[in-house]
Amino acid sequence: MVAFRFELLGTDGGARHGRMHTARGLVDTPAFMPVATQGSVKSLVPADLRAAGAQIVLANTYHLWLRPGHELIRELGGLHRFMAWDGPVLTDSGGFQVWSLSRLRTVREEGVEFRSHVDGSLRFLSPESCVEIQRALGVDVIHPLDECLAHPATEAETERSLALTLRWLARAHAAHAKDDRGQALFGIVQGGAYDGLRRRAVEETVALGCAGYSIGGLAVGEPTPRMYAITELVAGLLPADRPRYLMGVGKPPDLVEAVARGVDLFDCVMPTRNARNGQVFTPAGPLTISQARFTRDPAPIDADCRCEACRLFSRAYLRHLFMARELTAYRLLTLHNVTFYLGLMAAMREAIADARFPAFRARFLDRYGVESQGGPEPDPADTEA
Amino acid sequence: MVAFRFELLGTDGGARHGRMHTARGLVDTPAFMPVATQGSVKSLVPADLRAAGAQIVLANTYHLWLRPGHELIRELGGLHRFMAWDGPVLTDSGGFQVWSLSRLRTVREEGVEFRSHVDGSLRFLSPESCVEIQRALGVDVIHPLDECLAHPATEAETERSLALTLRWLARAHAAHAKDDRGQALFGIVQGGAYDGLRRRAVEETVALGCAGYSIGGLAVGEPTPRMYAITELVAGLLPADRPRYLMGVGKPPDLVEAVARGVDLFDCVMPTRNARNGQVFTPAGPLTISQARFTRDPAPIDADCRCEACRLFSRAYLRHLFMARELTAYRLLTLHNVTFYLGLMAAMREAIADARFPAFRARFLDRYGVESQGGPEPDPADTEA
Repeated sequence: MVAFRFELLGTDGGARHGRMHTARGLVDTPAFMPVATQGSVKSLVPADLRAAGAQIVLANTYHLWLRPGHELIRELGGLHRFMAWDGPVLTDSGGFQVWSLSRLRTVREEGVEFRSHVDGSLRFLSPESCVEIQRALGVDVIHPLDECLAHPATEAETERSLALTLRWLARAHAAHAKDDRGQALFGIVQGGAYDGLRRRAVEETVALGCAGYSIGGLAVGEPTPRMYAITELVAGLLPADRPRYLMGVGKPPDLVEAVARGVDLFDCVMPTRNARNGQVFTPAGPLTISQARFTRDPAPIDADCRCEACRLFSRAYLRHLFMARELTAYRLLTLHNVTFYLGLMAAMREAIADARFPAFRARFLDRYGVESQGGPEPDPADTEA
Repeated sequence: MVAFRFELLGTDGGARHGRMHTARGLVDTPAFMPVATQGSVKSLVPADLRAAGAQIVLANTYHLWLRPGHELIRELGGLHRFMAWDGPVLTDSGGFQVWSLSRLRTVREEGVEFRSHVDGSLRFLSPESCVEIQRALGVDVIHPLDECLAHPATEAETERSLALTLRWLARAHAAHAKDDRGQALFGIVQGGAYDGLRRRAVEETVALGCAGYSIGGLAVGEPTPRMYAITELVAGLLPADRPRYLMGVGKPPDLVEAVARGVDLFDCVMPTRNARNGQVFTPAGPLTISQARFTRDPAPIDADCRCEACRLFSRAYLRHLFMARELTAYRLLTLHNVTFYLGLMAAMREAIADARFPAFRARFLDRYGVESQGGPEPDPADTEA
């Protein structure tokens, strides 16, 4: 088995171009991971992901543990075989979902007790069981259980929470080291909106020695400039020879800004969830396909896009399908958005390799414009997170 | 432009093997038309239909007229370009949908007035406007407006209704003849459950000379043996040199039984709608994927099926996606069911060509078994019809 390894191929200012080697293939970075929360990128199949340029997908430990269960997935040959995706898979720890989805959670030193959002059953997740679940899934990159704080939180609350997350990380690290099966454990850097706590988080997380570092606790309601500032601070402190993953981010300009600050890896539900709400991304900014101005528009979403939706269909047709609530609309808009996100990452990799990333960044942001439309509100019943 | 033409290639008992020639390509018969009610076979794209073996699809005049509107579709280059399907398309007349979906309809000699189920607007459909709508759509096979009666109906009611349908047919025929654009007008044979009325319907419809004949008013609640008997009666009276289309039928054994009685063409929402309700078809009968017995089943739906769902995924995975309400489940189960229906038609064509249809029929019905599971109840909000 190929050991997990990150290769830094080049930089352009703060931006990095690299490559993650995994037992299941390469991931060129900066990379975006489409989100397969429950073992499927909603409305797509593996061939769609490959066609769109995906090299790695993210799945969700919390969701797969509750349904269908990690033991079932292990019994059926692991998550890759279960979902017929032979490329690398990264799982987050489920800490965020315990925070956002479960009812009646109680955080204790030992772990977190909560009621399942699926069936109301009482569940307990510890740093050790979280590693064990991800071991059963057989994925390539795993995460330690962490505590996610709502924004805003006081410094004292954040410090207490960070200390717990760091103690949990040490336990996860030990549980993983006992039987690592070639899985790469990434450490999660928390610390909220406090620079000092972020510094401490980096120091103590890096001291343990992880295969990669994930920046957590952002995109949870803080202002965008604050998110960029913390990303810059944390990325600047992390070792250059490990990949840096900014969890749950974000909008297309966020990806460009975070790459400029040295981030290598992203995931976000935005391309998939927003597609289902009728929002499609283009180099000139997002469009809301339900708008009346597209009723008779014969143009594709984006004339330069190579996705199936843009090669075959007009905005008028896609709007019609969306208004008529046809399932094909969700699929086509999702295909487009995932293709857009993955194409943006490929363009950034090329720009960094060619040492023209600053110009690319300026041109992209200028053309994309200031987003005048916020993304749709999340649907509380939506399981994609 | 190739004129519409039906070529009877061979028979085996009552079963017929043939070929419809249209300006947009051949259709080998017996054929099944996947249902693209609103201009999309729910969850699928044209490449999926081709991969499953579709040569022709059905679209719905009523639905496309109300939304997005036939003028819009004409302006965008016709239905084929709109939905990016370059093969033949057949539209039904919308008579059935006026009956089943609209509120407050009033049938008059001139036509039918009703309230749109989309926006509550008052609409009027006449035999002439129905032809005009289908002309604007630019499809290959069109249908005259007819009146659909609920089952059961008295003989007097049925006779009155049939007489109106025949007068409307004559008007549609005249409207079509004035400017036919190479579209083939099929005549619809009504007459309810009354043999005498069915005979009269065939006589008067055939006397007008249509490109094909459609058997309407079945699969609306009558017992299956009665449906088979009327199909046999009507098919036996129709001219051999025109295609016969049994509208809205049906379950896999119904297709086999109707082919045995001389039917060439079918459409039904069953493969697509039932997929969305978790029912999948196999040579050994239908399965309900949500059943607990499939929780850990590593087998595909059907080991002999070549569809993407069966090539890549286990029943356990498909069940998981279905239970988790993942959109990918609807797509994969739909792909499977459409592949199954189209594969069944291909197998019947081959059996007829090889003069072994009776053996095929007996073996199919024996293996399929008596259906112990009824299909799921239709969802009243579902627009696929």
